[in-house]
Amino acid sequence: MSVIKCKAAVCWAAGEPLKIEEVEVAPPQAHEVRIHILHTGICHTDEYTRSGKDPEGLFPVILGHEGGGIVESVGEGVTNVKVGDHVIPLYTAECRECKFCKSGKTNLCGKVRATQGKGLMPDNTSRFTIDGKPIHHFMGTSTFSQYTVVADVSVVAVDKQAPLEKVCLLGCGITTAWGAVVKQPGIKGSTVAVFGCGAIGLGVVTTSALVGASRIIAVDTNPNKEAWAKKFGATDFVNPAKLKEGTKIQDHLVEITDGGLDYTFDCTGNVHVMRAALEACHKGWGVSTVIGVAAAGQEISTRPFQLVTGRTWRGSAFGGVKGRTEIPGLVKDYLDGKVKIDEYVTHHRTLADINDGFGDMHKGDCIRCVVDMS
Amino acid sequence: MSVIKCKAAVCWAAGEPLKIEEVEVAPPQAHEVRIHILHTGICHTDEYTRSGKDPEGLFPVILGHEGGGIVESVGEGVTNVKVGDHVIPLYTAECRECKFCKSGKTNLCGKVRATQGKGLMPDNTSRFTIDGKPIHHFMGTSTFSQYTVVADVSVVAVDKQAPLEKVCLLGCGITTAWGAVVKQPGIKGSTVAVFGCGAIGLGVVTTSALVGASRIIAVDTNPNKEAWAKKFGATDFVNPAKLKEGTKIQDHLVEITDGGLDYTFDCTGNVHVMRAALEACHKGWGVSTVIGVAAAGQEISTRPFQLVTGRTWRGSAFGGVKGRTEIPGLVKDYLDGKVKIDEYVTHHRTLADINDGFGDMHKGDCIRCVVDMS
Repeated sequence: MSVIKCKAAVCWAAGEPLKIEEVEVAPPQAHEVRIHILHTGICHTDEYTRSGKDPEGLFPVILGHEGGGIVESVGEGVTNVKVGDHVIPLYTAECRECKFCKSGKTNLCGKVRATQGKGLMPDNTSRFTIDGKPIHHFMGTSTFSQYTVVADVSVVAVDKQAPLEKVCLLGCGITTAWGAVVKQPGIKGSTVAVFGCGAIGLGVVTTSALVGASRIIAVDTNPNKEAWAKKFGATDFVNPAKLKEGTKIQDHLVEITDGGLDYTFDCTGNVHVMRAALEACHKGWGVSTVIGVAAAGQEISTRPFQLVTGRTWRGSAFGGVKGRTEIPGLVKDYLDGKVKIDEYVTHHRTLADINDGFGDMHKGDCIRCVVDMS
Repeated sequence: MSVIKCKAAVCWAAGEPLKIEEVEVAPPQAHEVRIHILHTGICHTDEYTRSGKDPEGLFPVILGHEGGGIVESVGEGVTNVKVGDHVIPLYTAECRECKFCKSGKTNLCGKVRATQGKGLMPDNTSRFTIDGKPIHHFMGTSTFSQYTVVADVSVVAVDKQAPLEKVCLLGCGITTAWGAVVKQPGIKGSTVAVFGCGAIGLGVVTTSALVGASRIIAVDTNPNKEAWAKKFGATDFVNPAKLKEGTKIQDHLVEITDGGLDYTFDCTGNVHVMRAALEACHKGWGVSTVIGVAAAGQEISTRPFQLVTGRTWRGSAFGGVKGRTEIPGLVKDYLDGKVKIDEYVTHHRTLADINDGFGDMHKGDCIRCVVDMS
């Protein structure tokens, strides 16, 4: 195995647009996998780090965490994937050996967390260089490169029948939404409100419909999202910007649902919306799940009475999904027509145009933009 | 049935000490029960309203919600208790007919909530008068009167073998603590931290021990509480006031527990402690329960990252216990030696001395003061 030279979108410094560069991608070391990335989604987390708002952002860096590709080579000791496998890199690893994996209670594997947070591979070095200068990895995936290297615990093989330009989206948004709903007991027959109708929110809407929620209220300030939400299975759409002056969205929802929702989901990352989502829950049993990622330093708050009177505030990362164990089943569900993916893809870009893809994301009509990396 | 004249401790205005007065207690109306109160505990909630800090406090009022007594008479249609029954009034009613009761998900009965909050019986009037002037009820119980009237859904008969001067405490604190633990799945074999070692905190400690928690860390700034906590079953005691300057209690607890606690309980009512209790939870699965009641207008806050990485924030009122259904079993457990009550009683007062009982509560050596109402 030798160094591969290929194209990648590099973010040289916080706030700068990505720049297409030729990068050197070193061979995979022991328990590492080198992947030929064919497609990748663009997610708000990529933009959050690119913008410089993420205080933990490291530069220069190759962003991207929603990719699909083919295994090009594997390092010593890799047994879970082989050359030629179609794979999805996982920003939430699954080692099956650490305290977290073995707990049976969480998907937050601890195995590569520390080095991943430093933008490095588990041996504390990078596989990416440009003219010998190291470039940081991102979320353990860096899918904005035509070739990337990931830890073997951070990749899963999927059915080759599944088009990678679609199932790449299982690397983040769709899986996150799906897991947050299916791993929450009790949604069947219950009322649900979903705050935010981006890809995650629509994913929560459609999965709630899939598991049999009795009423699904989608909430978004963008009126164009009503049609989207209904297409994905929402029974109601509420635009908080159109409520009577001074009416809080949570009070409105409590009123129209005779006491509040059984389940609510924040898919916005806005801490004020997170509060509204909690307070829109029914007294006695309502459960609110935070999925959106807030900006650094921001805090959620509420009166503790909200909790004491029976509401529960929880959160979910990557939908609570163990990627290696569960994503193959999700791909099967997609192939069987049970899980939507195609419907999220509104925009296509090439690697050369990737910055336009970031621009698309800020428009109200973009759910997901998929980048062709070839 | 006629009006009964008896003694009661009346709070005439916010912030004033209680005054022993002769009150007229009207006969119970339909679905009401008049109770001869023999003993009552004093709880911080009584003091909170007495002090005037509770913005919803109504005056004049007869406080008290942790009582034990004997049914003196019943109104039309009462079937769940009869004259001569030993009973405990319930500030959390259980009608078994409302949306909440029938949900199977909460103990927060809605039947008498509205009038109870207004200090009145369900027909919107009071049974207490002094020289014809109405006096407010409190929490639907008003146990600081030798005779009180409660809704039939707000009272439960208990085994006559159980001494009322002890089981009166099941009317609030001990039941609250017991329920918060036994209704939380998973505590067996898990680690627990309990913030605050008053009656509720000690109740959480002892119940955690009862259900088999592997480690129980009691947290209190009063060093005298260490002996109390250990007596009730704590394995560790941490005094936040004695940590190294600048060390947060949550960070200390995370450190000494290799990542945090499986379960934490706030039994203080202090919103900063509630935050610490959440943040002391283990990433991925820790659950924090708010039991303490915060002062009006105060808010809890945290970074949403705490929830997204797998911690759950919930609350509990009256321990999630359905009083009519569950308190008889708790009394049996007490008689069988499985549930502690005697150990909480540190002080005794007579009705004439009830203000001293409020004074006792502010001392670090008082767990519960029981007032003899005779």
